[in-house]
Amino acid sequence: MRLALLTDFGTVDPYVAVMKGVLASRTDAAIHDLTHEIPAFDVFAAAWFLATVVPWWPQTIFVCVVDPGVGTARKIVAMERGEERFLAPDNGLLTMIGGAWRAVSVENEAYFLPHGSATFHGRDRFAPVAAALANGTPLDELGPPMAAIVRLDYEPPSYGGAIMRGTIVSVDRFGNCITDIEAARITFPRLALHVGEHVITHSSRAYGEAGKGAFVITGSTGHLEISMANANAAQLLRLRRGDRIEVGEKE
Amino acid sequence: MRLALLTDFGTVDPYVAVMKGVLASRTDAAIHDLTHEIPAFDVFAAAWFLATVVPWWPQTIFVCVVDPGVGTARKIVAMERGEERFLAPDNGLLTMIGGAWRAVSVENEAYFLPHGSATFHGRDRFAPVAAALANGTPLDELGPPMAAIVRLDYEPPSYGGAIMRGTIVSVDRFGNCITDIEAARITFPRLALHVGEHVITHSSRAYGEAGKGAFVITGSTGHLEISMANANAAQLLRLRRGDRIEVGEKE
Amino acid sequence: MRLALLTDFGTVDPYVAVMKGVLASRTDAAIHDLTHEIPAFDVFAAAWFLATVVPWWPQTIFVCVVDPGVGTARKIVAMERGEERFLAPDNGLLTMIGGAWRAVSVENEAYFLPHGSATFHGRDRFAPVAAALANGTPLDELGPPMAAIVRLDYEPPSYGGAIMRGTIVSVDRFGNCITDIEAARITFPRLALHVGEHVITHSSRAYGEAGKGAFVITGSTGHLEISMANANAAQLLRLRRGDRIEVGEKE
Repeated sequence: MRLALLTDFGTVDPYVAVMKGVLASRTDAAIHDLTHEIPAFDVFAAAWFLATVVPWWPQTIFVCVVDPGVGTARKIVAMERGEERFLAPDNGLLTMIGGAWRAVSVENEAYFLPHGSATFHGRDRFAPVAAALANGTPLDELGPPMAAIVRLDYEPPSYGGAIMRGTIVSVDRFGNCITDIEAARITFPRLALHVGEHVITHSSRAYGEAGKGAFVITGSTGHLEISMANANAAQLLRLRRGDRIEVGEKE
Repeated sequence: MRLALLTDFGTVDPYVAVMKGVLASRTDAAIHDLTHEIPAFDVFAAAWFLATVVPWWPQTIFVCVVDPGVGTARKIVAMERGEERFLAPDNGLLTMIGGAWRAVSVENEAYFLPHGSATFHGRDRFAPVAAALANGTPLDELGPPMAAIVRLDYEPPSYGGAIMRGTIVSVDRFGNCITDIEAARITFPRLALHVGEHVITHSSRAYGEAGKGAFVITGSTGHLEISMANANAAQLLRLRRGDRIEVGEKE
Repeated sequence: MRLALLTDFGTVDPYVAVMKGVLASRTDAAIHDLTHEIPAFDVFAAAWFLATVVPWWPQTIFVCVVDPGVGTARKIVAMERGEERFLAPDNGLLTMIGGAWRAVSVENEAYFLPHGSATFHGRDRFAPVAAALANGTPLDELGPPMAAIVRLDYEPPSYGGAIMRGTIVSVDRFGNCITDIEAARITFPRLALHVGEHVITHSSRAYGEAGKGAFVITGSTGHLEISMANANAAQLLRLRRGDRIEVGEKE
């Protein structure tokens, strides 16, 4: 199995390089970077990023370290779902991993680095445990089963009635505002999307196809996005993650 | 052959990670990052970056996705030149790839992901086609030949006469202003470079050798650069990409 | 042996991609990125980063290019320590590599690219020499022995007496201010850390454990850090690298 890393460590500081040293000296498995640019401490952003990426990485061990509670009583989860493995602090990061999974609480110190710190479990616990998983260690070696994991306080979209309600869950570098409303659930022939003071009634199939102004588009994950052609919609409309949206029939 | 990726996706959003998942699950070829930090939609910057890098990567498949027209009628080019392959939207990105090449328009849907989007061809078309090329698929399987490709509206430098005229084509993180004037073409014993209100008459062989003030230097690609020792010339002289320069004999 | 790269080139410009092309076309050794985000010309930051990372990368060739003197009379050092190799400009970058090492001055032009530049030794000298080392070339092939290398003008911490004195040597992306005071040397039962106008008397074992306000914590390298829980201590306290600190018994 291969390893895929997701952290909020950035690449300016030595934390990722240290983690990779521990991994590369303990396993021959391939090490891939998903991202290290999750905003500091932003567990929700990590959870959404992970959910977007997972379908495209079969047979992979996802090593996720966005961990403001490092060194406190929070647990570390090792999760198994089919041929995938997930390693993350038990802080909600795995909230959006659905399906039939089972999990253990990683507590077996034999798999940790000796004399570890309370401040860098990425190096002292996540990396050696991930290397062990890559080398074939079974999940149950790592610790006792967990019946439940911590879940983020996230309100999923509501689709009932004449108005669908959702949230902008991500703003990308192009300024596309990605919502959690699934496009396949839209039943309105002529859609109007309300966000803040804006009402957006133009739709487009491709980013470059639309005329001037904001439009609604089905993004690559199948969710509605608010976009502008060759312009940064988020900046121009002053939208940000967490903004609530409403979708209904155009009046 | 190995794969080398060049995009404007950044690493904050999940787009690169998703593309790499598609690649890694379809081919054992090595996957290298050239950059993902091309400014959003900046096809010229991508073309210049690519031209700088290509000579140093033999036997490589270059996967280039700076694609403001994704999902519109623009074509996707697969190009072959000796042992190199290039995959890019047909928007001028390959303008600076010279020599004897042949190209096809990538249209064979058998090589695309099924149920693809109109917004993320990096995932749905570029990645699976690149994996197919890495696995040995011949170019002609992908689509019909193209006699010509889209070229950028770029005015190359003029070398005739007493004044050579060119452009600042890139400003690097150190503030070096890289022009498109080839140093080997300079015939003036004592050179003066005019840019905006500035006249630069000092030359240097090495960045760290010069005294105070701006100087002209032959950069690593053989083009003239405007630089300052241990200082950011672009910021201090207020220069930017696209600024026109004139080079002549010092009066 | 594997290769690990540390530069101040960033990933926006093509310099790292070019270096990797030279490496990948000359050796099958694995190529890892430590960082390319050292601040431009910041040799001290590179030296500290390297010292933090080295213990976790056994049997590695460290290729370090933070090189404001490129093309001048400064030497290039190739250093051997046990199973580790270091390649760096002789400008102090290897100051913090202790222990029993031996070094040569890299001067044998047979290992350089032909027709190299005076501006990009990363491509023309460091990369081909690193590839040669990875392919088994002995150190002594590269040039004559060096009895000493350039060292940074860095004042190490003083531990004698009732007051220990040190420096903030790094500020990470979370705002943790990392000092050069080794926690194991602290002998005060109740510690007070003075920095600028601040006196910090709270200590914590984990970042997330502390209450409001700044605290002192033992970081992952065993040095004292100044931190705040889920907040950016450097910004809020207006601290920066180079600030001097004093540690003593709380009054």
